[in-house]
Order: sequence, then structure tokens, then C-alpha cells
Amino acid sequence: MQLLKDRILAEGRALNSEVLKVDMFLNQQLDTALIWEIGTEFARLFKHSAITRVVTIEASGIAPAYAAAVQMRLPLVILKKAVSIAMDSSLIQTEVFSFTKQKSYMLTLQKEYIRPGDNVLIIDDFLAMGEAAFGAISLVEKCGASVGGIGAVICKSHQPGLKKLKDAGYDVQALAKIAEMDKGYIRFEED
Amino acid sequence: MQLLKDRILAEGRALNSEVLKVDMFLNQQLDTALIWEIGTEFARLFKHSAITRVVTIEASGIAPAYAAAVQMRLPLVILKKAVSIAMDSSLIQTEVFSFTKQKSYMLTLQKEYIRPGDNVLIIDDFLAMGEAAFGAISLVEKCGASVGGIGAVICKSHQPGLKKLKDAGYDVQALAKIAEMDKGYIRFEED
Repeated sequence: MQLLKDRILAEGRALNSEVLKVDMFLNQQLDTALIWEIGTEFARLFKHSAITRVVTIEASGIAPAYAAAVQMRLPLVILKKAVSIAMDSSLIQTEVFSFTKQKSYMLTLQKEYIRPGDNVLIIDDFLAMGEAAFGAISLVEKCGASVGGIGAVICKSHQPGLKKLKDAGYDVQALAKIAEMDKGYIRFEED
Repeated sequence: MQLLKDRILAEGRALNSEVLKVDMFLNQQLDTALIWEIGTEFARLFKHSAITRVVTIEASGIAPAYAAAVQMRLPLVILKKAVSIAMDSSLIQTEVFSFTKQKSYMLTLQKEYIRPGDNVLIIDDFLAMGEAAFGAISLVEKCGASVGGIGAVICKSHQPGLKKLKDAGYDVQALAKIAEMDKGYIRFEED
């Protein structure tokens, strides 16, 4: 998605080979029109995937996932990050290790909100190691639903998540794929 | 907003006089079309308020605030909830006590994202005690910006937040105002 790649080059800041700051238009200050276009692009990419429900992970995934879901006329389900194991039997959880924060959290879902037969599109802001995506997949599949697609706004494709998800057979679409980066330097994959 | 009040009566669950569960359309599973209408209504209510920027608090405020901001063609800034005092001088923070969770958190903003002269609309999902709203106001005003309005999707007007904000001179608009509720029972204020 050229509009997004141009914006990352203009305003994003690669701090090192792993950390890309896009706080100024995607994470903390949101360019709402750009995020609308991101939603339009996800809707286009997964138009023929018979998706019944969009799922995201709080908090940075919510705005792009909402923009996609509202344009696809689908409900959106937000997976929560809990610090501890829930005692409530209506919840299902899976442990996810965050490399960014160097600690684990319990990805948590009220299980009634994903039903057997649902075909789910998982949308998140970043795809890097793939830990969060595999956690979301695990919760979706525990509900008896299928994963019809995975959409990432930005993929750091020099990190293993993208390849692992593709190798596992998932349809993964990333709107900007970073081939390599380092302090002050970003190179995208060719489309 | 009749559409919202009808939905709260049909699906919301009052657990007691303080806790209203609206997980099934607003917080965890989002009816994206309803949230779009909520955004339209905020845009209408604050049309003449010369707003330059919308601000919300992660995570439940993000979708309705995004829906309003994109329709108002404005940027959205998300205030983060941190557990500890940040050491980074580019951040400003204020302590907020959550009555729901019975603990405090540090409401946190990258200060460059709200500028002197901005006129901010603060949008959140719930207004009850007003602690989160006063925390957001404090951060906005510390940046030298003004608060042009406060929008709550649901206000529990039998709790003191609404009155305290109005007494302090703020323009507060709530789309559904609950006059009283208890287990299995919800009564709205007359419009």
C-alpha cells in the first residue's frame, strides 16, 4: 500500500533493526483518514474470503481493525491482554510472550463472541515474531471457528512471524513489508 | 440517542447499581455499524465547537472515538494507561483512580501530540465517577490546550462524574444517560 509506505518513510523512525516507531500516525496519534484507507485495503484484500467476523488485539490493533470491519459490515471482537489467569469459566485464554516488552500476558476472550462456523479475519498493527498472531489463532480455533485470513498493517518480514504463519498455511496479507531496517534506515520488500 | 438506548435495554445487563455490562455490542464484541452511528452523533453534537483534535483513553474508548474523529476529519490521540511513573521526559502523566478496578494507573501522553492552541474533544465509553475524564482534562490542559467538549457513550448520571464536569464548566454530552439501575433494571433520564 503505497500511501502507507510513503508515510512510514516520511515519519516513521527505525530505532534499530527491530523497533519501528509509528506513534505519530498509527499508534498514539492516529491519522484517521489514513487508517480508513488501511481498512479499505484490508476489505479489498479479503473480499473473497467469506469472512464472518474480524478479531483484533487491544489496544493498537483496534482502530485499523474497526476501520476494516465497519467497511466489511462485520462485527469486531477485541481480544484482551490480562496479567493473570482468569477464574471465570466463560473466558478462554492462551499465554503470549511479548518480545517488545520481554514478558508474557494472557490473551483473553469471552468465548461466546466467536462461534463454531465463524470464519475469522485477524487484524493487528504489527507482525514481527508472530507470537500474538499465533495466540489469536489458538483462541479462534479453540472456539471451533476457522481463520480465514490474517492482516497486518506493518510486517517486519526480516523477523520470522510472516514465514511461520505462511508455512502453517494461513493467508497473510501485510500492507507494508519491511525487508530490512536499522537506525535511520528502512527498506521495503518489492510488491 | 434512541438506537443506543434501545440496544442497552435489549442486550445490556445491569449487575447492580454500579456495573452495566455492554460487552456484547460496545466493549468486547463491537457492533461496528452502531458504533459508526455513535460517531455520527458525536460529530453532530460538537459540530459548532471548533474542535481540532479528538482524545480518548485506551482501550474501550478507541472505537467510538475513532468513528467520531474520522467523520469529523480530525486526528485522534490515544491516552495510554501505564502501571508506573515513566522516566521519559517526552511523556506527561497524571494519576487516575479506577473505581471499577479499585486501583490507580498513570494516564500517559506523548506530549507533542497535543499542542498549545488545540481545542480537544475527549471521548470515552463510560462516564461514572469522572476520574478518567478529569485525568484526561488535566493532561490536555498541561499541554496548553483547551477542552472543547466531553463525549460519553453511556453516562451513569446517578454517579457524580457528570455533575462534577458540568459544575466545572465543561460541555458534556452523553448519548445514553442512566438515571438509575439495579440488577435486571435500567431507567434512562428523560431527554
